[in-house]
Amino acid sequence: MFDNLVKNLNSYLYFTEEELNFFLSLFEIKTIKKHENIVRAGKVCSHVMYINKGVLRYYYTINDIEYTTYIFTEDMWAAEYASFLTKQPSAVTIEALEPCELFLLSYDAVQQGYERGKVFERFGRKMAENLFITHVNEVSKMQTKSPEERYLNLMREQPEIISRVPLKYIASMLGIIPESLSRIRKRISSAR
Amino acid sequence: MFDNLVKNLNSYLYFTEEELNFFLSLFEIKTIKKHENIVRAGKVCSHVMYINKGVLRYYYTINDIEYTTYIFTEDMWAAEYASFLTKQPSAVTIEALEPCELFLLSYDAVQQGYERGKVFERFGRKMAENLFITHVNEVSKMQTKSPEERYLNLMREQPEIISRVPLKYIASMLGIIPESLSRIRKRISSAR
Repeated sequence: MFDNLVKNLNSYLYFTEEELNFFLSLFEIKTIKKHENIVRAGKVCSHVMYINKGVLRYYYTINDIEYTTYIFTEDMWAAEYASFLTKQPSAVTIEALEPCELFLLSYDAVQQGYERGKVFERFGRKMAENLFITHVNEVSKMQTKSPEERYLNLMREQPEIISRVPLKYIASMLGIIPESLSRIRKRISSAR
Repeated sequence: MFDNLVKNLNSYLYFTEEELNFFLSLFEIKTIKKHENIVRAGKVCSHVMYINKGVLRYYYTINDIEYTTYIFTEDMWAAEYASFLTKQPSAVTIEALEPCELFLLSYDAVQQGYERGKVFERFGRKMAENLFITHVNEVSKMQTKSPEERYLNLMREQPEIISRVPLKYIASMLGIIPESLSRIRKRISSAR
């Protein structure tokens, strides 16, 4: 059940068997349907989620237009972490693009971990550091890379989402219209 | 000497006197001159800095044009933290706009803290979490607020920098040209 999660946790840090069992006992298992929202814009994000199965899309809406910001798949952690930490309303909605199996940590469960010992504090530190680095890199990519470079990058880093996710969401995430993404894809395939 | 730093540390967390003395022993004191760079784009950011006195400006350069991203003053922490954590080259230069007195923590000093005990892990976690939240909020402000709203926001949050920092840097940080900032300032003062 928790095999992939255990591998993921151990990739951050070494946990003793006792620490690991305690950690796993904090998780809740949740399955959600395609198009169900696990986080809603305007509501507090109450959980951190490990994606054991499925695909999640982050988006925000302005004037009825949806802007996709991230797409996450298996073995990734998801949350609107600023909302989770501050208990302020989430800026984004997180929607399942496929049926998902998620392992959830509530705010209280996370605090229980921090109270328990240093290894959990270290885990929380590394999560926050990774999130910070990822966010800085994403923003920098949007500022300095062309849409084509960003698409090539996405093919390298998350190749599976190209076949699993509607192209309109991928285009939105790259900051371009679907027609531009189609042109980029044609140019790349004819160049090969 | 360390009075303000101690207040700052205690605002994050409770430290015992022994923990605090150990923590303070990790800092180096550094004074730099006006226009000196404490971090250079392309080099690794090797320290986290507490600003005891002075003003620091973050900027990056594209095609010989400088883009100011942050201006930090007394009682704030500064670093190119993604570079510090990953030991990859810094994306920005950090320049003193006034003579500065900085309290520095090297990468090794920070690791010594983490080895020492849970309270230091927790401090590191809170620093990373705050940085993440700040970065998310800054990006969101640039996407959703007008330059005038961002200027009013800056006047609320860092009123002292208006008088201490050349307007061209403030305009750049707001993503506008100096002439637009002058117009915004005139409009605001005539509306009062």
